[in-house]
Amino acid sequence: MIVGIIMAAGLGTRVGTSIPKQFVKLCNKEVFLYSLESFEMCDAIDACLILVPQGWKEHVEQATSEYSKVQWILEGGRTRHDSSLIALEFLKDFKVQIVVFHDASRPFLQVSLLSRIANEAKVSGAVTTAVPSHDTLAFVEKGKIAGYAEREKLWRIQTPQAFKFERAFRYFKEFSGTDGTQPFVEAGQSVVKIDGDPLCFKITDFSDLMIANLICSHWDAVLGFIS
Amino acid sequence: MIVGIIMAAGLGTRVGTSIPKQFVKLCNKEVFLYSLESFEMCDAIDACLILVPQGWKEHVEQATSEYSKVQWILEGGRTRHDSSLIALEFLKDFKVQIVVFHDASRPFLQVSLLSRIANEAKVSGAVTTAVPSHDTLAFVEKGKIAGYAEREKLWRIQTPQAFKFERAFRYFKEFSGTDGTQPFVEAGQSVVKIDGDPLCFKITDFSDLMIANLICSHWDAVLGFIS
Repeated sequence: MIVGIIMAAGLGTRVGTSIPKQFVKLCNKEVFLYSLESFEMCDAIDACLILVPQGWKEHVEQATSEYSKVQWILEGGRTRHDSSLIALEFLKDFKVQIVVFHDASRPFLQVSLLSRIANEAKVSGAVTTAVPSHDTLAFVEKGKIAGYAEREKLWRIQTPQAFKFERAFRYFKEFSGTDGTQPFVEAGQSVVKIDGDPLCFKITDFSDLMIANLICSHWDAVLGFIS
Repeated sequence: MIVGIIMAAGLGTRVGTSIPKQFVKLCNKEVFLYSLESFEMCDAIDACLILVPQGWKEHVEQATSEYSKVQWILEGGRTRHDSSLIALEFLKDFKVQIVVFHDASRPFLQVSLLSRIANEAKVSGAVTTAVPSHDTLAFVEKGKIAGYAEREKLWRIQTPQAFKFERAFRYFKEFSGTDGTQPFVEAGQSVVKIDGDPLCFKITDFSDLMIANLICSHWDAVLGFIS
């Protein structure tokens, strides 16, 4: 079984909305439902588990009542890592081969990318999507530039990320990290990078939310452009 | 005199268009004209110099004939640094106090940001705009994650960037760099960081162009949102 794990437990308020950004409505549909729909439509995915903030379980149950692959809705932990572990612990009694983690605040997830990463994980065991960094990256200290990072080698890590379940469970218990690839890297394991999608950006601040709103109002046209 | 230098000499074809991206039309207006309009509207700016690719001078002359601040259109060099030096060399016979560099492929430039950076340069001598990096940044080698950069300290450098003319001329002749702040940093000089604008992103690949197209078709509404 290949299980999608939707990370929707964050309280991210930097975006300036009164509720967590993944539950804000874009074109009359909550942010987290966009990528969930891609999981629903993806043949490679068998079931979904959604991690939600304390107190949001009932809301998410109602909002996803018509999504047939949503099997489990769990309250997440204090950090992204804690939430991931809650999901993996819960899944250990099921026959899960691959887990595909995805940030609920990245709504524009293409089904083809999801299939690709699930298949790649079967081969390599641990895969992340990433996009190149086009801007110059500088270290800033006390409000001034203190040096530069080698942009050519630096990639912006995105989700989806997919892992063989047994390995993820082992390394996530042993090592922590702000990103899902980190426990593998800490354990000295390979994590393969495949090309992500610039459109699969994370909604973080208010202009991201505005851009996302523009994209969703033209999502059919956008899909026409890129496919 | 405060002079805006519009960097439009690149041939950037990664975006997949047949002409350089700064001359592609968004909502019936060429990309480079969007930020040029902000320079026109900004009281802090006295004149503009535009750097163009070989063979594009006549086109840009015609396209900007009604922009009153555009005083000089020059063919740029092989690299961004070469083009910057061509502009600075040319301006050395004028009484220029501050130069404000801007990438023509960053169309969504707010007038208020332009005023702010020009004024800040009068005080500190060298200023850049930058935005935080929200994604995890990883070093990728041979297709695999090889480590992480300290995201908290890393900023994505944008334009506009503003410098006292005499200093820019001196350091740009002495030191090179892919980014305009680099000659200053190489020379051991301070470059102040002020907060940029996520909307002032650089059009690099095709999805950027598509997002830019959506933004420009709703630019009035967008300005309403953010102001």
